[in-house]
Amino acid sequence: MALPGSIITLTTDFGVIDWYVACMKGIILGLDPHATIVDVTHEIPPGDVRAGAITLGAFYPHFPPHSIHVVVVDPGVGSARAALAIETDRCFFVGPDNGVLSLALDHEKIKTIRHLTNPRFHLPPVCSTFHGRDIFAPAAAHLSRGGAPAELGPESPDYHKLDWPQPVIEDRQIRGELVYIDRFGNGITNISSQALARWGSAVLAVAIPGRFQARLESFYQAVEPGQPLALIGSTRHLEIAINQGSAAKQLALAIGAPVIVTPQ
Amino acid sequence: MALPGSIITLTTDFGVIDWYVACMKGIILGLDPHATIVDVTHEIPPGDVRAGAITLGAFYPHFPPHSIHVVVVDPGVGSARAALAIETDRCFFVGPDNGVLSLALDHEKIKTIRHLTNPRFHLPPVCSTFHGRDIFAPAAAHLSRGGAPAELGPESPDYHKLDWPQPVIEDRQIRGELVYIDRFGNGITNISSQALARWGSAVLAVAIPGRFQARLESFYQAVEPGQPLALIGSTRHLEIAINQGSAAKQLALAIGAPVIVTPQ
Amino acid sequence: MALPGSIITLTTDFGVIDWYVACMKGIILGLDPHATIVDVTHEIPPGDVRAGAITLGAFYPHFPPHSIHVVVVDPGVGSARAALAIETDRCFFVGPDNGVLSLALDHEKIKTIRHLTNPRFHLPPVCSTFHGRDIFAPAAAHLSRGGAPAELGPESPDYHKLDWPQPVIEDRQIRGELVYIDRFGNGITNISSQALARWGSAVLAVAIPGRFQARLESFYQAVEPGQPLALIGSTRHLEIAINQGSAAKQLALAIGAPVIVTPQ
Repeated sequence: MALPGSIITLTTDFGVIDWYVACMKGIILGLDPHATIVDVTHEIPPGDVRAGAITLGAFYPHFPPHSIHVVVVDPGVGSARAALAIETDRCFFVGPDNGVLSLALDHEKIKTIRHLTNPRFHLPPVCSTFHGRDIFAPAAAHLSRGGAPAELGPESPDYHKLDWPQPVIEDRQIRGELVYIDRFGNGITNISSQALARWGSAVLAVAIPGRFQARLESFYQAVEPGQPLALIGSTRHLEIAINQGSAAKQLALAIGAPVIVTPQ
Repeated sequence: MALPGSIITLTTDFGVIDWYVACMKGIILGLDPHATIVDVTHEIPPGDVRAGAITLGAFYPHFPPHSIHVVVVDPGVGSARAALAIETDRCFFVGPDNGVLSLALDHEKIKTIRHLTNPRFHLPPVCSTFHGRDIFAPAAAHLSRGGAPAELGPESPDYHKLDWPQPVIEDRQIRGELVYIDRFGNGITNISSQALARWGSAVLAVAIPGRFQARLESFYQAVEPGQPLALIGSTRHLEIAINQGSAAKQLALAIGAPVIVTPQ
Repeated sequence: MALPGSIITLTTDFGVIDWYVACMKGIILGLDPHATIVDVTHEIPPGDVRAGAITLGAFYPHFPPHSIHVVVVDPGVGSARAALAIETDRCFFVGPDNGVLSLALDHEKIKTIRHLTNPRFHLPPVCSTFHGRDIFAPAAAHLSRGGAPAELGPESPDYHKLDWPQPVIEDRQIRGELVYIDRFGNGITNISSQALARWGSAVLAVAIPGRFQARLESFYQAVEPGQPLALIGSTRHLEIAINQGSAAKQLALAIGAPVIVTPQ
């Protein structure tokens, strides 16, 4: 159960120009003046559920227990997709049932999944285009005040899982792909440090066929400024980078590009 | 009167790259360490008083009573325009007297209008280019600490009102216009849901002559992805949209474009 | 010593799209739930140590005593550069030892300089690409909880100073340069109001040779809209501006351009 004064994180595709995020914060603070609201990002590309899911999966492990993570990347708002609050043994996730919560949930022990159907916790009249304000914000504030999740709506057996590319792990090769490009132009792959650990301390060659070839290094400065390298990034996944440069720009990286690792 | 621990919202055209907003926050927290500061947006286009006014009008009703809404979109900073703190029966508004507060005030019962002339609440020496830091931030902190508005300066009989386009409502037609385009590319009009209510449940046709024609729908998914529609948006005004697309881009929407609604 | 409930400001080049800043906030709030975190900016151009240093120098004087200012502009992350916490008689500075703290420190009386080497205050395993999360955030939280700086690591005699251009002050002329361009397109110089005070109330001519010539005015409205002027900006340095326009765009300003002031 969340305690008064608990943390509510907000991850949306609402941008920082319009007033949409502020509306959510006003509703939350009206219901729970003691909530600590943390903006994760509001710059998820509009409707990009996959980017929202990667973002949530990357930041939520760094937050303290009982945090309430609200993710509103919701291209299906107003349609039949369910609105969810999911309690795990560590924290809460609140958002639409379109897969945006699923990469984080892969690592969590789920206690209950609730459909946010109780109108007592909706802001009336619920607007068909802004459930962030009218459904998700009040639900988060209910939880941050220590309210029972069961009041929010009935239990549900399951949630929507994102179709997520898994790396192909073979004896002498791992084939993965780029799944995210960050503001520094680093290309983050779906190949975890754990997967690479199978080859111990062997020198590893990393390639994007026809575009990039380098060794796995331990830090940026292992190569000269402007030179490409691969390294384990802060999400503990393989990354393609250029020391003091943008791999995305200089190598024309695109999400989905194949990445191949081989021991030497 | 605002209570200690109350909310101060900030809406500016200062951007998020430079240090200007941080200066305001430092001043506020130095005077009232318990204030809860909420960034609404700092991306109002530079000097765009009308966009600031629309933004304030759209978000402030969602905040709890006694909130202090500071808006600094101030192309006339350093000139003779007055600096204001206005108390209504619901909350406080602080900003320059250039119309940026006026759309919100249209909906408020005003208690007092104060000119912020008392030098005791100015940060000396007042800089002619940054009243956000030197006048508006200290005034907001004074109010959030529960200080009396009367201390800030003398009462004033009136404030500057924005020249705002009103829709023309006729028996079989409403003619309004686009007043804002949001980050999703939705075009928000000056036609309220209340104005449309006159035609009850009649089917309504919405047009931007030569550019857009569609029916008023209840939610985005009423049309196929990529198709245009009109709907009542989260500000309870008529909006022009494209399901999972950007109406602004695909229809080349511009602020000021005429929007015509007719019952069928 | 910082008190519980103290302020931690964050200035980084991490951007607001990715999850990096959120990771730092999660770590900080996990260690000190009562910290007040203030985002200064996360839009320092990637690796631009000089812009980070100017930003810190411009905002930190506006914050209350005991504030903890964390600056992570760190192109050498993972290399041999030291990680620092510096206590002055006013506040704390936390960041890499690459000069990013030095413009602020020019104005401070330093008490101690500490190298952040104590692994007890590192997030294990320390990632070679993200000391913001693994070293600087935990150090800041330690200080904000009132922890002793001495626990963070051994004292160091000195820190890296930025190579900063000083204006050349002669009897009848000051030659400086543009050091920053803000979002309004104002060009901020390295010529302080103090340096100009030598000429009392004399009319001052300000020039960028071949590009800009105007008089020093007291506020924007001293010239017609669209006209260039010079004035003392909010950082108390000489600025090149255009009333209600962007000097950067209209005059094609670039950082490093020479600026010459002469009394008339």
